[in-house]
Amino acid sequence: MILLKSTGVLLLLSTNFSCAQQKKPNLILIVTDDQGYADLESFGSNDLETPNIDGIAAAGVRFTQWYANSPVCAPSRAALMTGLYPHNAGVPDLLAPRSPGLSLNRVTLADALKKKGYQTGVFGKWHLGAAADYLPNKRGFDEFFGHLEGTLDYFSHMYYLIRAPRPFHDLWRNTEEAWEEGNYMTHLITREAKQFIRNNKEEPFFMYVAYNAPHQPLHMPKKYLDRFSHLEPQRQRIAAMLAVVDEGVGEIIAQLKKDGLNDNTVVFFMSDNGGANNTKNFLSNEPDQFFYGANNGGLRGHKGSVFEGGIRVPACMSWPGVIPPGTVVDEPGIGMDIYPTFLKIAGAEPPDYMLDGHDLMPRINERKKTPHDVLCWEYAGQYAIRKGKWKLSLNTMLDFRREGPEVFLADLKADREETHNLAGEYPEVVKELRTQLDTWYESVKPNLPSE
Amino acid sequence: MILLKSTGVLLLLSTNFSCAQQKKPNLILIVTDDQGYADLESFGSNDLETPNIDGIAAAGVRFTQWYANSPVCAPSRAALMTGLYPHNAGVPDLLAPRSPGLSLNRVTLADALKKKGYQTGVFGKWHLGAAADYLPNKRGFDEFFGHLEGTLDYFSHMYYLIRAPRPFHDLWRNTEEAWEEGNYMTHLITREAKQFIRNNKEEPFFMYVAYNAPHQPLHMPKKYLDRFSHLEPQRQRIAAMLAVVDEGVGEIIAQLKKDGLNDNTVVFFMSDNGGANNTKNFLSNEPDQFFYGANNGGLRGHKGSVFEGGIRVPACMSWPGVIPPGTVVDEPGIGMDIYPTFLKIAGAEPPDYMLDGHDLMPRINERKKTPHDVLCWEYAGQYAIRKGKWKLSLNTMLDFRREGPEVFLADLKADREETHNLAGEYPEVVKELRTQLDTWYESVKPNLPSE
Repeated sequence: MILLKSTGVLLLLSTNFSCAQQKKPNLILIVTDDQGYADLESFGSNDLETPNIDGIAAAGVRFTQWYANSPVCAPSRAALMTGLYPHNAGVPDLLAPRSPGLSLNRVTLADALKKKGYQTGVFGKWHLGAAADYLPNKRGFDEFFGHLEGTLDYFSHMYYLIRAPRPFHDLWRNTEEAWEEGNYMTHLITREAKQFIRNNKEEPFFMYVAYNAPHQPLHMPKKYLDRFSHLEPQRQRIAAMLAVVDEGVGEIIAQLKKDGLNDNTVVFFMSDNGGANNTKNFLSNEPDQFFYGANNGGLRGHKGSVFEGGIRVPACMSWPGVIPPGTVVDEPGIGMDIYPTFLKIAGAEPPDYMLDGHDLMPRINERKKTPHDVLCWEYAGQYAIRKGKWKLSLNTMLDFRREGPEVFLADLKADREETHNLAGEYPEVVKELRTQLDTWYESVKPNLPSE
Repeated sequence: MILLKSTGVLLLLSTNFSCAQQKKPNLILIVTDDQGYADLESFGSNDLETPNIDGIAAAGVRFTQWYANSPVCAPSRAALMTGLYPHNAGVPDLLAPRSPGLSLNRVTLADALKKKGYQTGVFGKWHLGAAADYLPNKRGFDEFFGHLEGTLDYFSHMYYLIRAPRPFHDLWRNTEEAWEEGNYMTHLITREAKQFIRNNKEEPFFMYVAYNAPHQPLHMPKKYLDRFSHLEPQRQRIAAMLAVVDEGVGEIIAQLKKDGLNDNTVVFFMSDNGGANNTKNFLSNEPDQFFYGANNGGLRGHKGSVFEGGIRVPACMSWPGVIPPGTVVDEPGIGMDIYPTFLKIAGAEPPDYMLDGHDLMPRINERKKTPHDVLCWEYAGQYAIRKGKWKLSLNTMLDFRREGPEVFLADLKADREETHNLAGEYPEVVKELRTQLDTWYESVKPNLPSE
C-alpha cells in the first residue's frame, strides 16, 4: 500500500488507536551511560557496530538535537523519571553513595504508569537514591534488578569510587542483595529485561533498561575487545562495551517480536550525557591521563561540561504503525520530555504539579516546533540556556577538570561545535538570555535539596 | 616389587639420583591463601572437593603439624622465598600498597635456583613488594603473571582495599599491565602455570604457583557455587573457591604427566596462614559481621592470630620415586624449611648468611626429629614460641579484631586446640620459653625494616 506522506501518518495513527483499545502500548526506555553523540553509526560513527540501536532510529525517529537534562548521570536520570528539570526533582548534582535522591514528593514515571495498570520494571543503574525510602521498589517499580550507585565493577559488581567510605557490593534484586559475580553486567541487564518481557505478555508494561555501559571502569569480556582489535586501545574499549549493549538491545527487540509485542511497543533510546574522558585504568595511582575513547561528533566538551559535547546525546524512538520509519526530527528535545510523552501514550494522569517536559509526539508526527521557549542547564556552577539558535554558557568547564570560557555565546545553527564566541558581538542576546537563565534558576531554587 | 620399609627408601633414593644426573628435578611450590587447616579432605574436611591436592598428600607426604611463619600473608610468603623468619626477610607485617617488600640483600629461592640453571616463574599473588626494585622479575623470576598486592577482585583484577590511596588495576605480565577482566583469577593462574610447564620441558624449572583463593573477596564463577548449594552460604563460598583451586592443581599435575615430567618433579603444597574470618560481602558499609567459612579443624583462632588456627596449615609434598606414597610426618615443619629443602634437591648453593629454615628430607625419609630447637612467631605485637609439646603465646588476638589472653601456655600434645591455659601451673616453662622468645626477637630486630 503506497501512501502519500501526509495522509499516511493519519491512517497509521487511526490504525494504532483501534489496536490500543485492546491493550495499551508497552513502553520501554533504554538509557546508556556516557555514550557520546556520535557513538552510533546512525549519528556519524564509522567504527562501531550498533545495528540494533540504529535499527530503532530506522524503524522510527532519530533526534538530531536531543539533549540530556544534565552533563552528568544522576540529574539526567532524575529528569527522565519525573518530567522535571533535575533541580525540581531534587537531584541537581551527582549523588554521593548511600544518599537520598529523587524528592519523595515527586511522582515517578513508574508511579504514574503503575496507577494506569502498567507493570513496571527497572534493570540496571538506578542512581536516584540509595537510602531506604528512595529505592526503586519504593518509587513505583514492581521489579528491580541492578545497582544503586553511579559506578559498578562490571564483573564483581563492587562499588569502589574514592568518595565511598569503603568499597561495597552493589547488585540487587528488589531489596535483596544479588550475587552474580563473574557475569558481565551488560549481559545481566539484558537477561533481566528479556525475562521481564516474557513475564508480562498479557498486561501493558513499562520497562526502564538502564545500561551502565560504557561508563568507566571500561570492562568488557575479552571476545568483544578482540572484535575491535583494529581500533586504537581507547576507542577499542568503548567500541567493545557498546557492541555488548547493542547486542542486548537486539535481544530485547527480538524478544518483543517473539512474544508478538513489538507492534504495540514504544521504545525510546538515549544516552544519559555526552561521552566522558576517563583515565586509562579507571582508578590508577599513576598520574591521571585523559582518555577520549568516546566520540562526541566534534561537539565541544565532554561529560561534565554544559557545552554540547556534555549534553547533546544520541536519541531515537520507535512506535510501529505510528511513527513512520526513517523520520528525522531536528527540533530540540530533552530528557524530561519523555515523561509527558509516555504518560500521554498510556493515557495516564499527570501529577498535580506542572511538568517541565512536553509531549514529543507533535514534534514527531506533526512536525511542530518545540514548545520549549528555552532549555536550561545548571551543573556544579556552570549554566547554559538555549533559545532557538542561540546558546549561552556561563562558568564553563570542558569536562570535570579543565576550565572553559566564563561567558560563551554560540549560534548553534551556524556553529554546532561552539567554536566562535559571539558574546562580544551580541551583548543584547547575552543580556536577554542571562535574564531568562536567572529567572529559571530562581524558579527551581525552592526545590533544591537542602545541603 | 615389595620393599621393606627401611631399605625401600634407600633404593628409591639411589634410583632418583641416577635419574637426577640426567636432569635436575623440577620444583613446584603451590600456595593457597587463607585456606584453613582442615580445608582439605586429607586434613579432616568432609564437605569439600579437593581430590587433586589430597592426591599430592597420597602420592607423597602429609605434614600434620605444618606451620606458616606468620598468621598473615606477606610475612608468611617472605619466609617461603628466603628460608628466613619474616623479620629477617624484612617483611614482619602486612605490606601497604605500592610499598617495598623483601629486603634487597636477601637471595630469593628463585635467585638461588636460577643460578643453578633453573627456569623460574611465579604465577598469582606476589605481595612481597610492589615498588620497582621489589618486583618478581627483579627478585629472580624469569616470568611473572599475577598481582602485586594482597587482595584482588577475582574478575576485574582491581585492588580496592581501604588502605589504598585509590583503587587500581593490579594484573601484570612481568612489568606490563595485563588486561583480562572477566576471567576468573584462579583460572588465569592455572592457565599460566600450565603454559610455563609446556614452555620448559627441557630445562629444570622452579614454579611458584600462588593462588590468591580463598582469600576475600569471596568471588567465584556461579557454576562452582551451585555445586555446593547444599552447604550453608558461608561454607559454600569457600568450598566453591577451593574447588576451582583444586581443579587447577589437577590440571597442573596432568600437564606434568602429559609432558613426561611428573616423575622428576617435586610438588610442595601449603596454605599461607590459617582460615580467615571475613565480612559477608567483603567491604560492606553494613556493620561488620564475622564470617567463618573456613574450617580450621577445631584449632583456636583464625588468620591474624598466633594461636594454632592462625598458623597451623595444611601441607603436603610429593616426589615420585623418593618420598614413599602415604607418608605422614607429625614432626613440626614450617614455611621457611622449604627454601633449604629445595636448594638441597637442586644442588644449589645456599646464600652466605645463615638460614633459619632446615632441610625437610631427613624428617620425611629418615624419620628424624625436627632440627628446630624452637619455632617463633611475632605478628603485630603478638608473640608465640613452640618447643616440643609446649607453646607459649603472648598478647594474643583470636583474629584481627578480638583479643585473646595475654599469656597462654598450651601443651599441644594433650591439647592441640589450646583450650587449657597451663601458664599458672607451669611458671618455670613460661619463664624459660619467654627467655628464648626474647632472645629470638632480639636476634631478628636488627633486620626489621625501618619505620
